[in-house]
Amino acid sequence: MDRREVMKLGAGALMTGMATAASATERAERRPAAGDTATVEQWGVFEAEYKGPASGNPFVDVSFGARFTFEHRTVEVAGFYDGDGVYKVRFSPDTAGRWTYETTSNAKELTGRTGTLECVAAKAGNRGPVGTAHQFHFEYADGTPYFPFGTTCYSYGFIGAPYDATTLAALKRVGFNKVRMCLLPKPLGQRKPVAMPFVRAAGTRQEGAETLEDGGASKEHFDLARLNPEYFRHVEQRVQDLLAADIQADVILFHPYDAWGFKAMGEEADDRYLRYAVARLSAYRNVWWSIANEYDLVKSKTMKDWDRFFRIVQESDPYSRLRSIHHSRVVYDHAKPWCTHASLQEYDFEKSPARLAAWNKPIVYDEIQYEGNIARRWGNLSAEEMTHRFWRAIVAGVYATHGETYMTQDGGPVWSDAGELRGTSGERITFLRKLLERTGTTGLMAAENPYYANAGNAGRLYLYYFDYHCVGEYEFPLPEKETFKMTWIDPWAMTTTAVPGTLSGKSKVTLTGKPYMAVLFEKA
Amino acid sequence: MDRREVMKLGAGALMTGMATAASATERAERRPAAGDTATVEQWGVFEAEYKGPASGNPFVDVSFGARFTFEHRTVEVAGFYDGDGVYKVRFSPDTAGRWTYETTSNAKELTGRTGTLECVAAKAGNRGPVGTAHQFHFEYADGTPYFPFGTTCYSYGFIGAPYDATTLAALKRVGFNKVRMCLLPKPLGQRKPVAMPFVRAAGTRQEGAETLEDGGASKEHFDLARLNPEYFRHVEQRVQDLLAADIQADVILFHPYDAWGFKAMGEEADDRYLRYAVARLSAYRNVWWSIANEYDLVKSKTMKDWDRFFRIVQESDPYSRLRSIHHSRVVYDHAKPWCTHASLQEYDFEKSPARLAAWNKPIVYDEIQYEGNIARRWGNLSAEEMTHRFWRAIVAGVYATHGETYMTQDGGPVWSDAGELRGTSGERITFLRKLLERTGTTGLMAAENPYYANAGNAGRLYLYYFDYHCVGEYEFPLPEKETFKMTWIDPWAMTTTAVPGTLSGKSKVTLTGKPYMAVLFEKA
Repeated sequence: MDRREVMKLGAGALMTGMATAASATERAERRPAAGDTATVEQWGVFEAEYKGPASGNPFVDVSFGARFTFEHRTVEVAGFYDGDGVYKVRFSPDTAGRWTYETTSNAKELTGRTGTLECVAAKAGNRGPVGTAHQFHFEYADGTPYFPFGTTCYSYGFIGAPYDATTLAALKRVGFNKVRMCLLPKPLGQRKPVAMPFVRAAGTRQEGAETLEDGGASKEHFDLARLNPEYFRHVEQRVQDLLAADIQADVILFHPYDAWGFKAMGEEADDRYLRYAVARLSAYRNVWWSIANEYDLVKSKTMKDWDRFFRIVQESDPYSRLRSIHHSRVVYDHAKPWCTHASLQEYDFEKSPARLAAWNKPIVYDEIQYEGNIARRWGNLSAEEMTHRFWRAIVAGVYATHGETYMTQDGGPVWSDAGELRGTSGERITFLRKLLERTGTTGLMAAENPYYANAGNAGRLYLYYFDYHCVGEYEFPLPEKETFKMTWIDPWAMTTTAVPGTLSGKSKVTLTGKPYMAVLFEKA
Repeated sequence: MDRREVMKLGAGALMTGMATAASATERAERRPAAGDTATVEQWGVFEAEYKGPASGNPFVDVSFGARFTFEHRTVEVAGFYDGDGVYKVRFSPDTAGRWTYETTSNAKELTGRTGTLECVAAKAGNRGPVGTAHQFHFEYADGTPYFPFGTTCYSYGFIGAPYDATTLAALKRVGFNKVRMCLLPKPLGQRKPVAMPFVRAAGTRQEGAETLEDGGASKEHFDLARLNPEYFRHVEQRVQDLLAADIQADVILFHPYDAWGFKAMGEEADDRYLRYAVARLSAYRNVWWSIANEYDLVKSKTMKDWDRFFRIVQESDPYSRLRSIHHSRVVYDHAKPWCTHASLQEYDFEKSPARLAAWNKPIVYDEIQYEGNIARRWGNLSAEEMTHRFWRAIVAGVYATHGETYMTQDGGPVWSDAGELRGTSGERITFLRKLLERTGTTGLMAAENPYYANAGNAGRLYLYYFDYHCVGEYEFPLPEKETFKMTWIDPWAMTTTAVPGTLSGKSKVTLTGKPYMAVLFEKA
């Protein structure tokens, strides 16, 4: 369903005081439930909305949320103000069955509203949210392995048409299954974000007032106590579109690329923004939280702030969506308990064993430089090099994220922001993902001090990547008690060739002698 | 001249008690001088030979040498026993003019023999020996810059026909200007070295006797007090052949690849062997001394031994030929005073600035793994990767050495020993050398913390290598006070394209956007 439909249904619900179930994955079948009962599939999104106070400042004055109860279990969920006197609360049930709910508020008309929610089994394609698994890896809630093979579209959330559509089409075409995207706006050159996350303040800026002057040419300023629902609705639609396309949305909450001062709003505004973002977005099962991009470049904040943000997100999010933070030069201590996985800007995969041991969590090398042709050295990797880095990550038992910075002729986005994907590494990355998914394994563990880098599951699966080595023959040290089938892989040509027969124990094999090749062994 | 010719002339000289001048670079014109006067070109080789004691053990019993005098300067040079009662002394004069000499010995017939040596100007192509220059680089004695772009033919000295000829032809064809070669033999699979460096001892080995048992199947043993001139003559001819082809001979004095026990002969035999090697070979101006290959794998020797060997070579060599030592895992302290340059087995060029600062000498990364297709991971680099490593070395202000390990169908040498060169990096390496030679500069200094790796001579020359970056445009930070001409370089295609016009100061340039490209700026 698109935004107009949601709003229309919302309006209908308001008129009868009834709640609606908005599941982005079952657009066609969604309909308002009879009376005060809604139906939502497991891990889908239920949404209830009510009319409440519109005067004063609802963002500050009105508290609103709901308690969702299933048998003896109660989940408290914060709601949010969506403008025009409309209050919403969203909930993503993880258990099928009958849930009841009751709203809580300091406003009378928003208190004690109740309803029933029939949670039905997830439909095909809905595998639930992604969580960590087996210490260093990821899987969906239904147990399906998940290999993050994502890209970066920093401005997808707020860049607007036509890039909403072209970005989504490109992501689907190439096959990325995760997108890193900023929640706060980023300068877009000649272009403007579709809206601003805070409402513009009237008059000139007053000393001590919680407003921010626009750092840009307009000299406008913002009332940081009033969020702009229009802005968040737009970002939200992108998250829903990604969900419908089975793509995880790695939502970046803060970043240093700021023309308006949103990176230096002060604690009160920061924390209110964070709670609002979590209340709006956490019910979408494809959401991951990235506390910041290049956090250490935000000079107005300290480590205490970043840690506080982690705690606020952790406290506010009823679903414990994945949480991390991304650095520029100073690696965050990902051993901290609120971090679910590491998100790095590095490509020194040889340090992965030490990092995995130190942090005891999955590692995503979320910025390994960019395929492209811009004048910055971090933005002009060849497609071959980008592909190579993904393979190096996988045989190191970690993950990587793509990004693209191709100069455009038409003035379109260049800096891994949004729009068409022009590179040629993407399809190779998807080839690798599908190869891994086909194995049925959850994550690969890197071999310790291997002769050639390889990763797998002991006794079941081994994936070798030969890097610059032109291997003409090699005696693979396969276990003696099992037999394996072997597949030759050309990562660039994206071909797999099954080798007839099986191998067991030390197995000398003649190989192509070409560099950048790979071999997969799977238990026969 | 080949070995047969040398011997014939030697025999003639013996009959008349006259000395001969053997310059490998002027084969055709060399002839015995009239009476006791010989003519030799500067940096050529003069050789005098005499009949002396043949009984007992001449290697131990007889001391022999000569004093060469030019005006007030005297150079003492050790001679050597060449078997069959023949004693020789060689001398390479560095100054044109009339030298006189007089032999010294503990044997009456070898004492006080005198002669005159007319040293004439070096002919075209004879630029003298290579020495270090400008702290981190090399040049010939005549001031011509020398860029070491060598390869490795460990067994070239003793492998024999047909590989004597095929190796030399391959080196000339590809264009390498230095060869790393072992002086002591190395096992050759089914093949046998042309001879052994020590004579075989009669009977079975006796306790306490200075003999060595053959570690191989033959169980023969060696009299370590008797060197085998036949063996050394063969190696020597290879050094002469290289000299005639303008190729430096980096002679490796010890190594761990030993089937006969020569790596564990004991101090007395070690030192006698060293002095003999220096007496025979040091007069050839293309000789460099590598005390050992992978010294730290020779478990029978300690650091005290290696340092002693350096001192012996330094004391014995009247010409101070270049001296270094090559490691496997434990980097030698190349700051030691007898080391003229570092010889490394590494390819971590990013450590070069720290190493150059610590050692204050030229660095040759003498083993950066091998282009080839063998099953060892150090022996199956692609030609692209080998080429890439040479470029990385040069823009790091250091040097590299090639090696090749291609499996052969005909049972020929595989392990960078000798024979045909089958790879395709060699011609690219020569392309790079010629590019550098064409600039007329002596060595390139790496830029400090560059945006893209580059090296050159400040204000005169800058060579950029873009590695995996697909640079579509870049603003080169050229000095403002000079103008430069620019050349695009494709290191793999071996093409250079002069860009019309000149550039000065910060210069934004559109580039190919292809990876592994290079750009050269030269002062206009």
